[in-house]
Amino acid sequence: MDARARGLEDVVIGESAVSRVGGETGHLSFRGYDITEVVEHLGYEGTVHLLLRGGLPEADPPPEMLRELARRRSLPPEVERLVDALPAELPPIDALRTGISSLGGGRFPYPPTLEQGLELIAQAPTLLARFHRRRTGQAPVPPDPELGHVRNYLHMLEDGRPDPTRVWALESYFDLIADHGMNASTFALRVVLSTNADLISAATAGVGALKGPLHGGAPERVLEMLDAVGREENVGPWLRGAFERRERLMGFGHRAYKVEDPRALLLREIARKVADPRRFALAQRLEALALEELRRRRPEQRLFTNVEFYAAVVLEAAGLPRDLFPATFAVARTAGWVAHALEQAESNRLIRPDIRYTGERERHLPSGYPRRPIPP
Amino acid sequence: MDARARGLEDVVIGESAVSRVGGETGHLSFRGYDITEVVEHLGYEGTVHLLLRGGLPEADPPPEMLRELARRRSLPPEVERLVDALPAELPPIDALRTGISSLGGGRFPYPPTLEQGLELIAQAPTLLARFHRRRTGQAPVPPDPELGHVRNYLHMLEDGRPDPTRVWALESYFDLIADHGMNASTFALRVVLSTNADLISAATAGVGALKGPLHGGAPERVLEMLDAVGREENVGPWLRGAFERRERLMGFGHRAYKVEDPRALLLREIARKVADPRRFALAQRLEALALEELRRRRPEQRLFTNVEFYAAVVLEAAGLPRDLFPATFAVARTAGWVAHALEQAESNRLIRPDIRYTGERERHLPSGYPRRPIPP
Repeated sequence: MDARARGLEDVVIGESAVSRVGGETGHLSFRGYDITEVVEHLGYEGTVHLLLRGGLPEADPPPEMLRELARRRSLPPEVERLVDALPAELPPIDALRTGISSLGGGRFPYPPTLEQGLELIAQAPTLLARFHRRRTGQAPVPPDPELGHVRNYLHMLEDGRPDPTRVWALESYFDLIADHGMNASTFALRVVLSTNADLISAATAGVGALKGPLHGGAPERVLEMLDAVGREENVGPWLRGAFERRERLMGFGHRAYKVEDPRALLLREIARKVADPRRFALAQRLEALALEELRRRRPEQRLFTNVEFYAAVVLEAAGLPRDLFPATFAVARTAGWVAHALEQAESNRLIRPDIRYTGERERHLPSGYPRRPIPP
Repeated sequence: MDARARGLEDVVIGESAVSRVGGETGHLSFRGYDITEVVEHLGYEGTVHLLLRGGLPEADPPPEMLRELARRRSLPPEVERLVDALPAELPPIDALRTGISSLGGGRFPYPPTLEQGLELIAQAPTLLARFHRRRTGQAPVPPDPELGHVRNYLHMLEDGRPDPTRVWALESYFDLIADHGMNASTFALRVVLSTNADLISAATAGVGALKGPLHGGAPERVLEMLDAVGREENVGPWLRGAFERRERLMGFGHRAYKVEDPRALLLREIARKVADPRRFALAQRLEALALEELRRRRPEQRLFTNVEFYAAVVLEAAGLPRDLFPATFAVARTAGWVAHALEQAESNRLIRPDIRYTGERERHLPSGYPRRPIPP
């Protein structure tokens, strides 16, 4: 069967007014506002307001959204106990998935509401930071209601007052990836929600989908690649070796974009500002030569740097531990998930496609094959 | 947008050789064997063998599958600790979803394997039974490797030796619902897996989707309906009231079947054997009058009793606590999920459909809207 059909490529599963992805033009907008304007003008609370309320906040940061998120950050004690019982060696994204799953129960009945959504967005960073503190043998840091969402996340991870440059870089990242049309994790969330399962079941599925390297699981591998190259002058020889070994280069290509992903462009400029200059120069050199070679080898594919390449450099500069990258992506994406969950529930229809049966037909058990004993 | 399109109805997302659902003919077969033959001849281990290995076991129960599942039943100590930390008031299906999520980490790398699948199938009942024992203030019962899968599940729930009739009824149910073509939970599992996320992420999504009342979350409500009716002679008046109040009747209608669901037919006969005769008579009377009335009111819909109606009566007769029904459905369905996960990974393609953007376009921030401060 055709691979495009199996991937549901270009199959339209509904209507959405959350974000618009223009793959041919390199466009991304949230509720009609270009992503460049969003990231220049809004912090994460403003972006959440825009995505969930559908319009621009009167001021940024919007005081009401700051307050509504800040007051929901603390975890119920039973969820704290559960997070503390997670094995330290669990990958953080597995811990986040399990922690979000444990939020279930009575507090999130179907259909999802804005309030439920705010609770999920507010508590996801607390879950992840608590797990990170525990696994590194440190006491959890309670959320500080005086700090914004992203600054508080870094504060809970580090028990310090992170400098404004790092907060700015991380908050820009949160803004940029807060939503992205119909992607695999948002689709998984909608499929789960379409059975009238609750927001927590749906978001748990979203985290699971996001874990996959074909979706959100790759940015840490970009850094491993940069580490393996080491220095700018090694880029050429390293790339030749990688192509010979037929290794997959991390951070290039995206199904939706046939031109440069606008987020990649913005993240490159953020990385330029905040990353160690040698690291940035190495990344730029690797990007340039890799694209040159990829285009020479596969001219038909129109390959570009994707969002993960410079996201990795930005997250590193923001001081995040590498193995928190995928889980941090999920934490930032909760905003988009909630917006899509609210939309899905508004005009829900069970999402249940078909599959073509290609197996054996009309087989029969050999005569004399014993029956299961039936009770009297 | 058309509701059928939003539900991906009749959209074919791939090929499968696991089970065949004939909605127009009332057919269900596993690997080519009619479900009637499967349930008459195979226990759950035999059905797992059939689904995962693709052919009939030489004998039933197949000694190798008995052994392979039995030796994998115990939970790692860190998972036991996590289950013990779950709040007692969590719905059991939420506990199962969270428990399965916690199995993640290093033991289940992508791609899924048969061994990983057996581990999931073997451990799901242990997770659920442990949670049930804990929430009811009882000590967990360790799995008994001498018992078959379903008998051991009841044993772990009850710390007793359940009588053969109850085991037979529950095992028949496990067989019947072990797989069912492309349904919402199996689809959610495939979507998650298609990002190259692991089997645990995918199965966690499956449990979440199954929780929804449009999928697996309804059987307990069938019993609530029977309780509300109370006695056979009340069926008529109760139904008139329900139609007047425009209540949704539980246990009727299924998207795939335009004739009687073959599982409903088989479960009716199982219920006839094992249920309290008055309960069964009440269910039959309710079924008959409800179908009569539904067909009179919506003759175009071809409504039939679905799998949940008599499943509820059978699970009750098997002695399962009512609030364990959806989670028990998920436990039995793990077999089908694993079969589909192995198939998906074999010829994977990222499942990423499109959505039509219908929101505002080209909005701009008012001039003078402040920018986020950029660090120096």
